Amino acid sequence: MNLFYAPDLNPDDKLFVFDKNESRHISRVLRKNIGEIVWITNGKGGLFKTKIIDNNPNKTKVEIIDYQYYEKKSPKIHIAIAPTKSNDRMEWFLEKATEIGIDEITPLLTEHSERKKINTERYNRVLVAAMKQSLQYHLPRLNPLTSWKDFIIGVKEQQRLIAYCQSKEKISNLIRPKKDTILLIGPEGGFSESEFEQAVQRDFQPVLLSENRLRTETAGIVGLTTIKLNL
Amino acid sequence: MNLFYAPDLNPDDKLFVFDKNESRHISRVLRKNIGEIVWITNGKGGLFKTKIIDNNPNKTKVEIIDYQYYEKKSPKIHIAIAPTKSNDRMEWFLEKATEIGIDEITPLLTEHSERKKINTERYNRVLVAAMKQSLQYHLPRLNPLTSWKDFIIGVKEQQRLIAYCQSKEKISNLIRPKKDTILLIGPEGGFSESEFEQAVQRDFQPVLLSENRLRTETAGIVGLTTIKLNL
Repeated sequence: MNLFYAPDLNPDDKLFVFDKNESRHISRVLRKNIGEIVWITNGKGGLFKTKIIDNNPNKTKVEIIDYQYYEKKSPKIHIAIAPTKSNDRMEWFLEKATEIGIDEITPLLTEHSERKKINTERYNRVLVAAMKQSLQYHLPRLNPLTSWKDFIIGVKEQQRLIAYCQSKEKISNLIRPKKDTILLIGPEGGFSESEFEQAVQRDFQPVLLSENRLRTETAGIVGLTTIKLNL
Repeated sequence: MNLFYAPDLNPDDKLFVFDKNESRHISRVLRKNIGEIVWITNGKGGLFKTKIIDNNPNKTKVEIIDYQYYEKKSPKIHIAIAPTKSNDRMEWFLEKATEIGIDEITPLLTEHSERKKINTERYNRVLVAAMKQSLQYHLPRLNPLTSWKDFIIGVKEQQRLIAYCQSKEKISNLIRPKKDTILLIGPEGGFSESEFEQAVQRDFQPVLLSENRLRTETAGIVGLTTIKLNL
């Protein structure tokens, strides 16, 4: 099954025309003909079953023949993470986190952050590709690069965890099920003492993700998988 | 902490000389001087505390001042996986699996395999780098590319799992703790019917890794993390 993405598609829409890029993909790569079925999601829980009525390789047109809404699974998982120096590693995290099923990602600007700029548009493309690949109908929410100060006063989740390699508490022993959860992952150099203290004051529990020293992006994926299993 | 790797180092050794590459790293990049401590593992559980006695940038010489043996953790985890078409994705899997703490990896040649050749030396370099990075003292065992036929008659682990997206049994509900475990991950096109049947006959239990469709390398990492948490 191939899944396409059209963020502006609404439940009431009757027709949809793909852009040039997607049209070429449908007609030239997948070689779809008139009458064949194409599945589209709007990334907001909507799955549209459509039928090709014009397979023009520049503007393939489909008729929407069925619509189904999929509720977002709860509880939600949010990871706030300092982007890695290597962009590849950060994009790998975004891809894998989406595949595994994350709800929200906040790239964090911390005192020891190695990357102080991100390309949000590019990150979003990675999320879209991974959502389509893993056949999901909700696009994870990607927040802009957020300063520690702005981040820490705005936390809303009930269950708050901060990855801390000196913690004696294994993450899997601490998670209480059925609560929206946020996990904080610091940069390679770790959070500063002051950041760590502020997090603890804001009810973040320090948790150990692994007995091994994990890279930032690995910590994110191990943390996410562990939370999903215990929530 | 920096960890170096010297596979031939033995508990009785008194001195060690680094090759040109590592010597340069120690003297030029890390700028270590005579008398400073350098940690070395032989990847077989041995951790050697050594002191620089000659910081020649071509052949840095150290004296071994302490040796400690770390038992391999049990139970063991073995993943047999069909290498992905993209070599990058397979190397990501190797790196992450090592960081998280895998014991053995078998690259599998199956009926639907997309990659029929691997560069074992290159794969091993990825494992060594990830072992050092994550501060572990056991190098995972990397088997050569193994045909399905040879693989399936040689399985030794007590607990046998095969990733199967149509299974209704979540992997976390099936794992019995404290048993050496092997997880089978097929290629993008899946195992053939005959391979799947042979696996089931050899006591492999079909398990569901995720509700989402995961890429091969993601399946490996999610499976490994889940087994580690439940073993």
